[in-house]
Amino acid sequence: MNDMTQSPEMLIATMANRARGAGAALALADDATKARGLELAAQALRDKCNDICRANEQDMENAAARGLTPALLDRLRLDTDRVEGTAKGVEQVARLSNPLGSIIEETRRPNGLILQRVRVPLGVIGIIYESRPNVTADAAALCLRAGNAAILRGGSEAVESNRAIHAAMTEGITAAGLPVHAIQLVPTTDRAAVGAMLRASGLIDLIVPRGGKSLVARVQEEARVPVLAHLDGMNSSYVHSKADSAMAKSLIVNAKMRRTGICGATETILFDSAFPATAEIIAALIDAGCAVRGDEAITALDNRVTPASEEDWDTEYLDAIVSAAQVSGPDEALTHIAAHSSHHTDAIITEDADVAERFLNQVDSAIVMWNASTQFADGGEFGLGAEIGISTGRLHARGPVALEGLTTYKWVVRGTGQTRP
Amino acid sequence: MNDMTQSPEMLIATMANRARGAGAALALADDATKARGLELAAQALRDKCNDICRANEQDMENAAARGLTPALLDRLRLDTDRVEGTAKGVEQVARLSNPLGSIIEETRRPNGLILQRVRVPLGVIGIIYESRPNVTADAAALCLRAGNAAILRGGSEAVESNRAIHAAMTEGITAAGLPVHAIQLVPTTDRAAVGAMLRASGLIDLIVPRGGKSLVARVQEEARVPVLAHLDGMNSSYVHSKADSAMAKSLIVNAKMRRTGICGATETILFDSAFPATAEIIAALIDAGCAVRGDEAITALDNRVTPASEEDWDTEYLDAIVSAAQVSGPDEALTHIAAHSSHHTDAIITEDADVAERFLNQVDSAIVMWNASTQFADGGEFGLGAEIGISTGRLHARGPVALEGLTTYKWVVRGTGQTRP
Repeated sequence: MNDMTQSPEMLIATMANRARGAGAALALADDATKARGLELAAQALRDKCNDICRANEQDMENAAARGLTPALLDRLRLDTDRVEGTAKGVEQVARLSNPLGSIIEETRRPNGLILQRVRVPLGVIGIIYESRPNVTADAAALCLRAGNAAILRGGSEAVESNRAIHAAMTEGITAAGLPVHAIQLVPTTDRAAVGAMLRASGLIDLIVPRGGKSLVARVQEEARVPVLAHLDGMNSSYVHSKADSAMAKSLIVNAKMRRTGICGATETILFDSAFPATAEIIAALIDAGCAVRGDEAITALDNRVTPASEEDWDTEYLDAIVSAAQVSGPDEALTHIAAHSSHHTDAIITEDADVAERFLNQVDSAIVMWNASTQFADGGEFGLGAEIGISTGRLHARGPVALEGLTTYKWVVRGTGQTRP
Repeated sequence: MNDMTQSPEMLIATMANRARGAGAALALADDATKARGLELAAQALRDKCNDICRANEQDMENAAARGLTPALLDRLRLDTDRVEGTAKGVEQVARLSNPLGSIIEETRRPNGLILQRVRVPLGVIGIIYESRPNVTADAAALCLRAGNAAILRGGSEAVESNRAIHAAMTEGITAAGLPVHAIQLVPTTDRAAVGAMLRASGLIDLIVPRGGKSLVARVQEEARVPVLAHLDGMNSSYVHSKADSAMAKSLIVNAKMRRTGICGATETILFDSAFPATAEIIAALIDAGCAVRGDEAITALDNRVTPASEEDWDTEYLDAIVSAAQVSGPDEALTHIAAHSSHHTDAIITEDADVAERFLNQVDSAIVMWNASTQFADGGEFGLGAEIGISTGRLHARGPVALEGLTTYKWVVRGTGQTRP
């Protein structure tokens, strides 16, 4: 194999053709075999833990020499616990119920034709990701469980770790008799390979970018292949006048501060002008270590609040910072959200069911919540078992995407010789 | 309004913002109002039939002067019957059941959160189409019935007809109290407006091209907005050794010759070498006026068969021409289909249920059929009431796309103050 000397286009075309062939074989493999392949892959991850950690040390040394930030270094780092966590994640995917073969819909036509819509694999899925090497295992496991072949393109800083994890994954699945090309890792760190994947229309069926905004933006800009993309989590929580004060405080502090770096974190709080405990919640946030940037009304409540700029209402901080505004009621809250939301997750806190239902109905976001923390925006918390990402797009899959989002359907028509009149 | 003097980008952005606003209003309108709007639109099409036909005469004169082919002129032509047919089509869409608000899935999490996936409108849909002016009414009706705002961009040769039909449609929907910008027609025939639509990422949620291959190819090449595209209908019918001869003859002649110009027409026939009545079916096709291009074995059966070139196996004739090959059995048939199918519709004719099920399972096409004519590949025949198109892509919607394909879903989460641990 001389993959390293091919043009990126040739390389990706070759890999995609192998993936298509592997996908056809996967489509014929029964579900137990796919589950067994993932269990063996999890075991291989454990067996090769030392190899993986050694490979990771090399990546860490190179990354440190290149001056990566401590945050990036932490994302890159693997140890026995993290490898065990990755193996457990793969086992969890092995235990998810089979998404394939289910009949979505069945109808019998007056002419006797019987039509079924049957769930089938999506095909060949390209995953483009950054520093976290566990994605090599997580994403591959989800793709395979849904009968898809995966082409993985990790970050250059994680190249050795990714290779070691990929070797364990393919060892596991081939031991179960599954095709080795069901999980392929792009062997070059040449950035042109990413471009070739994005242009591989007809060869790759779906691209899933996993990483920061600049990666996702590049993918969306360049891709000719459909993209399942997660842009910002510019989420609001609206505290209605009839919110329970204690519940509102607990929800808001959790929604903002539980983990500030996840996409489900609340970034803007809208307080109804008739809600009585706004100052108390602002104080609780500040006491919890959150910087609050407020509009005029909010700034007047606490001298530790700094004035928000126009930009703040559109900023996903992913940090212990929040923007807060006062609104005159549900209409103004809905208008603010329509103008600034990234259509990821928005929540209302209220004891008024009518106002809540109106909010749930009118807010056009992937996830809308009533009296719950926006931090629940997560495939695991939604009971999906795992997620390949949270889609902020509107087509195919919206919100947390797990196995079902990695499938499509076909129409199966059974007749007895019917001709069309 | 000075739409005609704006840049195409400004024009489309303005229209898309109006569409977004109209879509928000549509999302709040109840279903009966949307149905009523379409009934009034159908009535307005009938009331304005003379205006529409006069506008169409002008288009026809211009088109004749420009030397359009008789086939294109026929597509462009409207008369009282065709306008009545269009009105009936709009009424039919009005009577389809409401696709919105249904709960796709509901789960209760251990922490008490109740999750629902609820069907909602897709948003703003751009339709780019060619000469048939009835698309102005058909596509707008389907978009509106599913709660979406439509931006319509018809062919320049049909500009007067489209304007007249659009005027009737908006008269109808506004009489029901629906927003006028729910159905907008791009006011310029400048081709740059199409490019602006294709690049209107975030403003337009979905582009549906309706037209010939060159239009669809341009749209797929240039689009940054997701596309629901129908490429070729390079469909095969495979006559297995255990096919009933009489059924096979009737199905093959129907699948090829009923209407040769539709995307569900069979373009390649694969005859099992052990099937005894191949020559009879070839003769029946030729007697019905079909030119048969065969491989060596088929050419030897009838001196009216001409030899097929390599190109023939990938050619969607849309005409009374068919390519025919002999295969040694299901494996070779599956290999041929995998290599040449456009993943639209493929059929097997056999009395052997095991072979049939294997074919239905292994052929990776939007529609797979057993003992039925491929000409049934149609939303109406599938009981969908109408179709916006047949998708040969794999994401979001596959095969005939009707109302459900013009919706998405959102996750609605109802809690009682749950915070994430």
